[in-house]
Amino acid sequence: MSAAYTLSVDGMGGDFAPDVVVAGLEIAAERHPAARFLVLGDEARLAPLLAAHKRAGAAVTLRHTPDAIGNEMKPTAALRLRTSSMRMAIDAVAGGEAEGVVSAGNTGALLTLSKIVMKTLPGIDRPAMAAIAPSGRGDVVMLDLGANIVCDVRNLVEFAVMGDVFARTVLGLTAPTLGLLNVGSEELKGDERIRQAADVLRESHLGPQFHGFVEGHDIAAGTTDVIVTDGFTGNVALKTGEGALKLMSQMLRQVFTSSLSAKLGYLLLRPSLERLREWLDPRRYNGAVMLGLNGVVVKSHGGTDAEGFAHAVDVAMDMVVHRFNERIREGLARIGPATPAAMAAAEPPVAPA
Amino acid sequence: MSAAYTLSVDGMGGDFAPDVVVAGLEIAAERHPAARFLVLGDEARLAPLLAAHKRAGAAVTLRHTPDAIGNEMKPTAALRLRTSSMRMAIDAVAGGEAEGVVSAGNTGALLTLSKIVMKTLPGIDRPAMAAIAPSGRGDVVMLDLGANIVCDVRNLVEFAVMGDVFARTVLGLTAPTLGLLNVGSEELKGDERIRQAADVLRESHLGPQFHGFVEGHDIAAGTTDVIVTDGFTGNVALKTGEGALKLMSQMLRQVFTSSLSAKLGYLLLRPSLERLREWLDPRRYNGAVMLGLNGVVVKSHGGTDAEGFAHAVDVAMDMVVHRFNERIREGLARIGPATPAAMAAAEPPVAPA
Repeated sequence: MSAAYTLSVDGMGGDFAPDVVVAGLEIAAERHPAARFLVLGDEARLAPLLAAHKRAGAAVTLRHTPDAIGNEMKPTAALRLRTSSMRMAIDAVAGGEAEGVVSAGNTGALLTLSKIVMKTLPGIDRPAMAAIAPSGRGDVVMLDLGANIVCDVRNLVEFAVMGDVFARTVLGLTAPTLGLLNVGSEELKGDERIRQAADVLRESHLGPQFHGFVEGHDIAAGTTDVIVTDGFTGNVALKTGEGALKLMSQMLRQVFTSSLSAKLGYLLLRPSLERLREWLDPRRYNGAVMLGLNGVVVKSHGGTDAEGFAHAVDVAMDMVVHRFNERIREGLARIGPATPAAMAAAEPPVAPA
Repeated sequence: MSAAYTLSVDGMGGDFAPDVVVAGLEIAAERHPAARFLVLGDEARLAPLLAAHKRAGAAVTLRHTPDAIGNEMKPTAALRLRTSSMRMAIDAVAGGEAEGVVSAGNTGALLTLSKIVMKTLPGIDRPAMAAIAPSGRGDVVMLDLGANIVCDVRNLVEFAVMGDVFARTVLGLTAPTLGLLNVGSEELKGDERIRQAADVLRESHLGPQFHGFVEGHDIAAGTTDVIVTDGFTGNVALKTGEGALKLMSQMLRQVFTSSLSAKLGYLLLRPSLERLREWLDPRRYNGAVMLGLNGVVVKSHGGTDAEGFAHAVDVAMDMVVHRFNERIREGLARIGPATPAAMAAAEPPVAPA
């Protein structure tokens, strides 16, 4: 029997809350029988939903919160609102009542609140946002996706440590390969910062897994299991790739309805297309995570459905059950202080020729 | 009757040179009857090809060069080799013999040589690399694509000026819309540098065309006609989008051959898929340009075919015929010194409330 884990859940976050949240928990409760869910939100709306969803109802402890954070609310305003469902769900993790939190609410507010309330893990300079994307060779972990617009060498190295552990705990890989996103794969490409980060990684315990620099096209190709980059580039790259796939899907839909024979062709292809559709299903990739905090934080897409929300819960459970944060601590201890100075000191003296 | 323009052509650049170069010029000579081509390269190999391609033969002046720059050659080595076909093609523009140069050779060498030999246009701090990409609403101009890894406010503003003129001259738009690539569309997103660039553009003659910040998914959506960003982000974004489209194409090919009924469906769909294929045809997007130099520089993809090479010549001709560089000068004169200080000085004093 597995130990019971508790996740706190922002009952009011997302475009279709609280309905989708409860419907998602109904699926999650079946998948994770040992899990408990502490749901924060408007009791008057949540109680009837929980009564109607038996599995969720049995796994949930409901706690009323008078406020909710809207999608348009600025993080500073969200921070002042101490009785929102999101804030109280985060407080539950900080207070030790839950191991992690899942919210489909306002991303900026979730980032800011969880950083300030939970605090950064000892040894981590800046938390990062990570997600899983599809590739030609299986799922790929990307980070940072926008939590840190400007990053230094230390940040990039820490992202690699966290990305490695995330790929082990959530993708179940034993030795994920790591790539540092750059404008070319040659060692001299990119700026000083990125070249130094590559040097540190090459010399670290992650060296055997470190593939070196990768380029934009390596994301979809799946050249490495983990793609490390700063939050500006990562955010742009993820959205650019999603945009390209979406455009191609739209064009295909037009093609499939463009003539009678095309419609017939589509009917014949439909069973085979199903695999492609499943592979690209955004619900399978739902659940961006904030890594590097004292607790697990998973952000579900605001517009997802019950299945997508349940997937975000899966991600949180994987991280909690596989002791994500303890393994981050172990990884950090092995890499030591990841500064260029430390790296230079660790280099052997140049031998006489 | 149009005036005669001369382009110099690196006869030895590209994976299939000189064959594809001459075959491409055969197509280009028909499309641009007023154009002359000064082809630099190995006479022993080029002369028989030109004899076999009548239109190209009639439009070309051949000049022998003893050397060629390989794909692996470092820019510094390329710079020392003064008798390469690429170098002498660039020299021909610098010497006034040709208005522009087309090469399918080593990108890094072409960037470095053309910058050093042709020199930057007066008023331009840093040249940029631009290309055209497909989108859901027509072609989109993106720059910078890797010529400048780190950019300041002035660079980004100059890229916008050059991207505007490029979209007018090559896409034929009268008032192209401009977007600055960022991690969110709200005014407070991104770093100081990008927010200041947005302020300068908003106040400039480009203000009415300036859409503000755009995100990664706006590239494929075609939200704006021109996407302005630094060379690091632009390079990663372009390659990420290309990679995603390529992956989806591979997956579709698998689907189309996955069963007998899928194969039959594909046969029925094929005529309708042709439009999609044409739209994504990389040859239609062949021809990255270096903007901001004293002369037109077009880089053809090294692995393209004759049709793709001819398209790169089209791009060069569009820029030459529509006086690209004169219009850049006009744009720069209108924007003035694009520094944050100048922008601040141009702001009206705050009126009392």
